[in-house]
Amino acid sequence: NEDTVAQLDKAIESLLSGGMQRKPKVPKGTRDYLPEQMAIRDEAFTIIRRVFKRHGAVEIDTPVFELKETLTGKYGEDSKLIYDLADQGGERLALRYDLTVPFARFLAVNAVGNIKRFHIGKVYRRDQPALSRGRYREFYQCDFDIAGVYGRMVPDSECLAVACEILDALPIGDFGIKLNHRRLLDAILDICGVPAEKFRTICSAVDKLDKEPWEEVRREMVEDKGLSGDVADRIGEFVVLKGKPWDMYNSLMTEKKFGDHKGALDAMEDMKILFEYLDAMDKLKFISFDLSLARGLDYYTGVIYEAVCMNGNTQVGSIGGGGRYDYLVSMFQEAGKVTPTVGVSVGIERVFTLMEERLQKEQGGTIKQPNVSVLVASAGGENQLQHRMRLTNLLWAANISAEFNQQENPKLKFEIANALERGIPFMVIVGEEEAKENKCKVKDLNARTEETVDVPNLVALLREKGVIPVGCEFAMELLKNGKA
Amino acid sequence: NEDTVAQLDKAIESLLSGGMQRKPKVPKGTRDYLPEQMAIRDEAFTIIRRVFKRHGAVEIDTPVFELKETLTGKYGEDSKLIYDLADQGGERLALRYDLTVPFARFLAVNAVGNIKRFHIGKVYRRDQPALSRGRYREFYQCDFDIAGVYGRMVPDSECLAVACEILDALPIGDFGIKLNHRRLLDAILDICGVPAEKFRTICSAVDKLDKEPWEEVRREMVEDKGLSGDVADRIGEFVVLKGKPWDMYNSLMTEKKFGDHKGALDAMEDMKILFEYLDAMDKLKFISFDLSLARGLDYYTGVIYEAVCMNGNTQVGSIGGGGRYDYLVSMFQEAGKVTPTVGVSVGIERVFTLMEERLQKEQGGTIKQPNVSVLVASAGGENQLQHRMRLTNLLWAANISAEFNQQENPKLKFEIANALERGIPFMVIVGEEEAKENKCKVKDLNARTEETVDVPNLVALLREKGVIPVGCEFAMELLKNGKA
Repeated sequence: NEDTVAQLDKAIESLLSGGMQRKPKVPKGTRDYLPEQMAIRDEAFTIIRRVFKRHGAVEIDTPVFELKETLTGKYGEDSKLIYDLADQGGERLALRYDLTVPFARFLAVNAVGNIKRFHIGKVYRRDQPALSRGRYREFYQCDFDIAGVYGRMVPDSECLAVACEILDALPIGDFGIKLNHRRLLDAILDICGVPAEKFRTICSAVDKLDKEPWEEVRREMVEDKGLSGDVADRIGEFVVLKGKPWDMYNSLMTEKKFGDHKGALDAMEDMKILFEYLDAMDKLKFISFDLSLARGLDYYTGVIYEAVCMNGNTQVGSIGGGGRYDYLVSMFQEAGKVTPTVGVSVGIERVFTLMEERLQKEQGGTIKQPNVSVLVASAGGENQLQHRMRLTNLLWAANISAEFNQQENPKLKFEIANALERGIPFMVIVGEEEAKENKCKVKDLNARTEETVDVPNLVALLREKGVIPVGCEFAMELLKNGKA
Repeated sequence: NEDTVAQLDKAIESLLSGGMQRKPKVPKGTRDYLPEQMAIRDEAFTIIRRVFKRHGAVEIDTPVFELKETLTGKYGEDSKLIYDLADQGGERLALRYDLTVPFARFLAVNAVGNIKRFHIGKVYRRDQPALSRGRYREFYQCDFDIAGVYGRMVPDSECLAVACEILDALPIGDFGIKLNHRRLLDAILDICGVPAEKFRTICSAVDKLDKEPWEEVRREMVEDKGLSGDVADRIGEFVVLKGKPWDMYNSLMTEKKFGDHKGALDAMEDMKILFEYLDAMDKLKFISFDLSLARGLDYYTGVIYEAVCMNGNTQVGSIGGGGRYDYLVSMFQEAGKVTPTVGVSVGIERVFTLMEERLQKEQGGTIKQPNVSVLVASAGGENQLQHRMRLTNLLWAANISAEFNQQENPKLKFEIANALERGIPFMVIVGEEEAKENKCKVKDLNARTEETVDVPNLVALLREKGVIPVGCEFAMELLKNGKA
């Protein structure tokens, strides 16, 4: 029956000695999100989800790991970047590399043929991280895809509309979307004299044009990939072409750049229809037609696009992309089945970085944490803490964000200073006197007013003074702007 | 300059032949979330986040994998359930097992000493899955923790209040929270004559009491863990005791069950203070004081609790739990540093299952997918699709969820039937005539009315008729109930 203090001390010591020998850290290429950063991420996701939902998309989720065989043979050279799980008996597993292949697998497993869905989730790549440019090994993708047989270029145009609306709604400055067509690219390679079996590898080389100069890409084509210099130069004449959609379309057609190449003319017809639809949805102004855009992944079969942030006329990084991939789902289906699919993926890490930079500029170097609306304090007497708890609980029940100081008896002076420092707009103060009469004081720290109120009227008074219940912020913003 | 059709055919063939030999599937113990299920999950998360936020908690996130050494030595016997990543060069990594150890690591890495935070994320356990009972290998946890030195039992009481508010707000029926104290349990073992070095292992045995009968737990104590029968029987007399908080407290104290055992009396004083606070926050009604509650994990040092769903008087499964763990963070800090912490974790899979069952009952077997507010259709003439796109885009810009049929020229009759079948409440219809005058028709499918409106007034009319912009649903609900 000895006291347990000695035993506890021993337990603590054994716990402490089990501690880490070196400073703890996060895995390479990953990061913690601190509250200020999470507030930004939450804002970005809220904006993005709103766009997805107003387009009538439904949400799905898939496991973060898939059977290894599900991912095998889908990513070409990038397959080496896939994280495998250890063999601990049982299935061979790997972390998902993107949300597109899991979506294709999802359609096959759940026998879904038509769907407009969005999916927000983390993906994993054992890439060389470049944290300053927002490139991580764990990062979020926000995907919107339409699967099913529909009018020519109709779902394609909605995917692009969604991308434009998201980038327009996010506070990240100017952006543009580069557009091309995988079959047009193939036609160009065909016209230039590239043999069909080299289409994909030459495509990969063209894809590097936004990072490398033409000379380097040409060298890769000729030296590494065995193209003749003539053929490479002919490609070079095509891939410099870019411009406003109708200007490009008209000049390519007028100059008969593709002769009567059936594949090229068919792809150009796709582009024409797409431009008309994008115009109807007032999105054509964001688009440029760019023959150098190739997109790395093998599975694209139609229109392809990439969204870039602009700083004036300078491109400051890719923030998303996508395209049509009509045969990826087939890889998981019975032979002969085809589920045509088109989608867009927004890479959110780059968006966070841009939003963070903007907020830091706006708020003078620091980013404000999300805040509570009311601090409940007490002034002298018995059972102060319980009085504070009782009142705070009333506010919680009305969905008002409220806190009380977790010390037993903090000084009121200190409480007020704390509220001012944290920018909390209202205080509710209860003293022994008020408690007896079931009253409390409401202090408006911005208006510098104070009034006494009956506790049953407290919530109504705070709402009158402009306190917004948690979850109603966006509705109130709409109301204020006269949009609701 | 051959046409590329033959080449495409070849590409398709090679893609198809690269397909899977067997039917694709998800890894064992995991699942896809279909749109109906995601709608439920989204509703649950929205409710839970609202509670966290009104308590002034900030949100954080951590990577889904940690350095293996971060997780080592924290989970006792359960460590064998941790998923390791394959060694592909570089660091040794493992998927997180819970959000608590990553939180402790987070506090140390980011030098955070005081925080009230929540974290919603997936965790991973190589457990035997029991899908029907909602036990998966990948599942969500929703954690709320308070770290820092505060008034005695104050943060503990707020964690319990948060748990009660969440379970009360979720549409899952009745629930209760079982409460105990780790130091009280230690004191009981001490009083019964268990040697200190066997406290943890006997604790693990007691923890099984909600799944196994006392006889089996007693057998484990005596046969497997070497306790004498007498000692086990004495423990048996304690662990049957449970009841309403003050009843239990008073009878234990009156009957002097713990004699003058310092550790026990100290823990009982904790309980007394906690009950007073829970009463002030109107949460004591949900609590039972249960001496059989032990909680498996080693790191608890104070109050412990577990939330259970009730069906009448029958317990139908644990949906969360937590407690105080004052020394876990120390394992990542310099020797001698202590960051006292208390938290609660809601296991959401079980909640989904309960919500799903309820909805299925309410909606007669099927669960409704989330829906759009407006279907935009066209009636005859040229450029129908573009007219539909133009109008739909106006609605999107006003944050109204709207769709148009993605076929080129669907029959209006078919469109109306489709809207009725999907339960879409409004249609906007544009014909060649209306398009010329910049007008359209608004059809209210519930009220069976139709009127013509100038396009610039379309959004206002729909809002008047009760269409709610995306993201304003909760605010409108509050308004309707007169709470906003």
